[in-house]
Amino acid sequence: MAGIDLNSDLGESLGAWRMGDDAAMLAVVSSANVACGFHAGDPAGILATLKSARANNVTVGAHVSYPDLTGFGRRNMDVASADLVADVIYQIGALKGLAAAAGTDVRYVKPHGALYNTIAHDARQGDDVIAAILEIDPTLVLVGLAGSPLLARARERGLTVVAEAFADRAYTPQGELVSRREKGAVLHDPQVVAARMLRLVQEGVIEAIDGSLTRVQADSICVHGDSPGAVDMARELRRQLEQSGVTIRSFIDAGSAPSA
Amino acid sequence: MAGIDLNSDLGESLGAWRMGDDAAMLAVVSSANVACGFHAGDPAGILATLKSARANNVTVGAHVSYPDLTGFGRRNMDVASADLVADVIYQIGALKGLAAAAGTDVRYVKPHGALYNTIAHDARQGDDVIAAILEIDPTLVLVGLAGSPLLARARERGLTVVAEAFADRAYTPQGELVSRREKGAVLHDPQVVAARMLRLVQEGVIEAIDGSLTRVQADSICVHGDSPGAVDMARELRRQLEQSGVTIRSFIDAGSAPSA
Amino acid sequence: MAGIDLNSDLGESLGAWRMGDDAAMLAVVSSANVACGFHAGDPAGILATLKSARANNVTVGAHVSYPDLTGFGRRNMDVASADLVADVIYQIGALKGLAAAAGTDVRYVKPHGALYNTIAHDARQGDDVIAAILEIDPTLVLVGLAGSPLLARARERGLTVVAEAFADRAYTPQGELVSRREKGAVLHDPQVVAARMLRLVQEGVIEAIDGSLTRVQADSICVHGDSPGAVDMARELRRQLEQSGVTIRSFIDAGSAPSA
Amino acid sequence: MAGIDLNSDLGESLGAWRMGDDAAMLAVVSSANVACGFHAGDPAGILATLKSARANNVTVGAHVSYPDLTGFGRRNMDVASADLVADVIYQIGALKGLAAAAGTDVRYVKPHGALYNTIAHDARQGDDVIAAILEIDPTLVLVGLAGSPLLARARERGLTVVAEAFADRAYTPQGELVSRREKGAVLHDPQVVAARMLRLVQEGVIEAIDGSLTRVQADSICVHGDSPGAVDMARELRRQLEQSGVTIRSFIDAGSAPSA
Repeated sequence: MAGIDLNSDLGESLGAWRMGDDAAMLAVVSSANVACGFHAGDPAGILATLKSARANNVTVGAHVSYPDLTGFGRRNMDVASADLVADVIYQIGALKGLAAAAGTDVRYVKPHGALYNTIAHDARQGDDVIAAILEIDPTLVLVGLAGSPLLARARERGLTVVAEAFADRAYTPQGELVSRREKGAVLHDPQVVAARMLRLVQEGVIEAIDGSLTRVQADSICVHGDSPGAVDMARELRRQLEQSGVTIRSFIDAGSAPSA
Repeated sequence: MAGIDLNSDLGESLGAWRMGDDAAMLAVVSSANVACGFHAGDPAGILATLKSARANNVTVGAHVSYPDLTGFGRRNMDVASADLVADVIYQIGALKGLAAAAGTDVRYVKPHGALYNTIAHDARQGDDVIAAILEIDPTLVLVGLAGSPLLARARERGLTVVAEAFADRAYTPQGELVSRREKGAVLHDPQVVAARMLRLVQEGVIEAIDGSLTRVQADSICVHGDSPGAVDMARELRRQLEQSGVTIRSFIDAGSAPSA
Repeated sequence: MAGIDLNSDLGESLGAWRMGDDAAMLAVVSSANVACGFHAGDPAGILATLKSARANNVTVGAHVSYPDLTGFGRRNMDVASADLVADVIYQIGALKGLAAAAGTDVRYVKPHGALYNTIAHDARQGDDVIAAILEIDPTLVLVGLAGSPLLARARERGLTVVAEAFADRAYTPQGELVSRREKGAVLHDPQVVAARMLRLVQEGVIEAIDGSLTRVQADSICVHGDSPGAVDMARELRRQLEQSGVTIRSFIDAGSAPSA
Repeated sequence: MAGIDLNSDLGESLGAWRMGDDAAMLAVVSSANVACGFHAGDPAGILATLKSARANNVTVGAHVSYPDLTGFGRRNMDVASADLVADVIYQIGALKGLAAAAGTDVRYVKPHGALYNTIAHDARQGDDVIAAILEIDPTLVLVGLAGSPLLARARERGLTVVAEAFADRAYTPQGELVSRREKGAVLHDPQVVAARMLRLVQEGVIEAIDGSLTRVQADSICVHGDSPGAVDMARELRRQLEQSGVTIRSFIDAGSAPSA
């Protein structure tokens, strides 16, 4: 029976500021990318999200970032290797500590925002993130952009990797994301999104922006929960996948090493 | 043969700003209270200190603090319990992560600055720190002020505790620290300091500021390294203790549960 | 004709995190307490709020705070005088700079959160805030809690002061705020709130929590905008005041020195 | 009689962390680039430096930066225009406020670190900094790298600009700085430095790294004070310049608009 992981960014509130609806999303996803305090998340808020993730039996990953609260980790920063390696270890460690207190554990790492985009292609910073994971816990899975050079490099270094697709994003015929600056880059119709992702799970292809079919190898689908509309889209995606016989389950629970 | 632990605050540089001489102090002490990023310490600097601690076979503790870089953790903050518990867990977890990368481990927790002083007597915040340790790792030892109510409370909750004395501080006849605001509160003569601490180790007493003897139960002595004079005083203390047959060794290495 | 100022806390978003509905509130109030970056507010967001305040002809004040983003400035901090004076000057200066760029100016100072509550009664920290205002711009008005010792001290030092009442808070027979921890401390019915504030403006009295009348001298009323319900209450208050012939206007526009 | 400005980066301590010897440097330089809290400097420390600058009759400039304390403003950050403009205004405003309290004023702006290097050539970020200055106070002088496109753009927009040379840096035959990554990029001999800068003042040329002479138009010389050796070099430079009849004076005091 077919199965797929759904992941989402959670724990992104900060003190008095709320972001997203963690409670709603933890009923939809099988994996939670939890903020670690560098782009979002304060310790008490992170801990509450982790406890809720455990109660919902959702797998936890570290959503590591550049140190940039004001920019929400979305701004490129030229961080030296010694700093980047240590920053990533620090964040994973902090989340591991909170996860232990919540009765769960950190099982994977998914970089956030500008760091995610940069390391998809930048070998130096990508190697720094890989090195950080190897140094703190080589059993952690690295989640990254399907088709990116990062995943191949990480696999060579011995990491288990998982490739992810984005539910609400358009793809080029080459299987890459259409830039957000281009028209049609972001999809808004839950029915369209659900149909596309179902095809991805069942056939391994996504219809590209030019109408052609592109092969995308993904073991996880990223969904958003930062608006009521986003939560509804995620819910509808899960509903349709399950209706079609697809099991929503963490890539960790899937048992054998992912094939990405 | 008599033995005692020497501990010092390390890893307190921040980016381009240097503080203390970690390399020198790691040759003097048996325990390193390593900053966790809330009052001082950036991840790369902390990691470097941890690697050096491991190379020097020095035991590592988490020097947790209120979140206050500008105030260096020396300002009282009225942090709610949910925040304080999570802040402490976050810091210990971050340091555990970096310690794992450095090939060592965190073995104890010593709160820093205003948090240290507050929880020595404030039951609410003290219980929060105790709860944090119990939630992340109940095998961690709590280091606190000799004679403080905190240590008794922590022991009751099942934590192993270690009481510490301060090498360069005057004591009241009741065995408490003389306030820094009072004359004579801080000692500056390395010979006097060494003689006092030797007597503490050998007889369990310190000469109080009024000349009387006060009993102080301590399994560790805190020394400072934030100035060349401070480093020299710590070196001289170690030299005289060793010359008198006292072994400098971590309270962890001491094996059996400390008696504090 | 009777007139009163309505003030509200604005500019409290931070990067990707939204707080309050500044656009809605700037159509209701005559004075905007704008965050300065220490408890909330990033420069670009603050600048946008200031431009909107100018477009709405709303008077701008500096909502200065302890340095505590995670705690939203709501936690007491024991800040030394040299730091507190300089922190307040820094924040006022930063807001003055952004106000100049927005084509407006900072006319008053209203401390935020824990700092507001502390200096209402704490003479040392209150004097620090007064000193800061005198050093950067003695023409700035200080807005504080009606009846608090702070206002008397500030007036003695030569500052113009404005006392404020809280629209949605219960008062003791002595004219002080009922603690939020007590039942009935916060009012939720817009009609009740409007009737109370109308009586305050017209008769100078508020019905205390025990049913007695207490005299409150206030030249400004603080309203909140951090939820849709709060915005609605503020709108209703303004509507009823105006319907009863009360002009909503800044205490600055009122011309002569306020009598508080 | 020939005259030249000497400028240095000051106010870069942060809370308990010391950096540089502001007192010593304020006896050497005629212009102080004072940190604004984004890469270094806490309000109380900045205020103390400003008071000392005033006592030494040293002109004050705003040393604005990317928001990056841990990286000391030395890391490139891809800050969007709306944020960069507001960040620069915020910093200048904050420093203006503290300067007013210190009895002095901010007369110029010199960007710091990565921002300085980036805007020397990056037109988008350069225009953002220019716009920020124009919005808060168009009488502020912009200090930048001699020969950089930034200065021409700023002059076109109506700003007064001052070009600076670096006392301890090697130059290419084209009048550009030799990259720090190349051998010989930084000069260490105070005699050599003094002779080079004297020639710059008197003849408008610097001997390039290949021995040729390159024309450098500079109205200010940047000296460092972050180590005892650096302070000594700055002192020796001033001594030799004065001995040769060169007056050390701010470009502001020089009266007419600088010719850079």
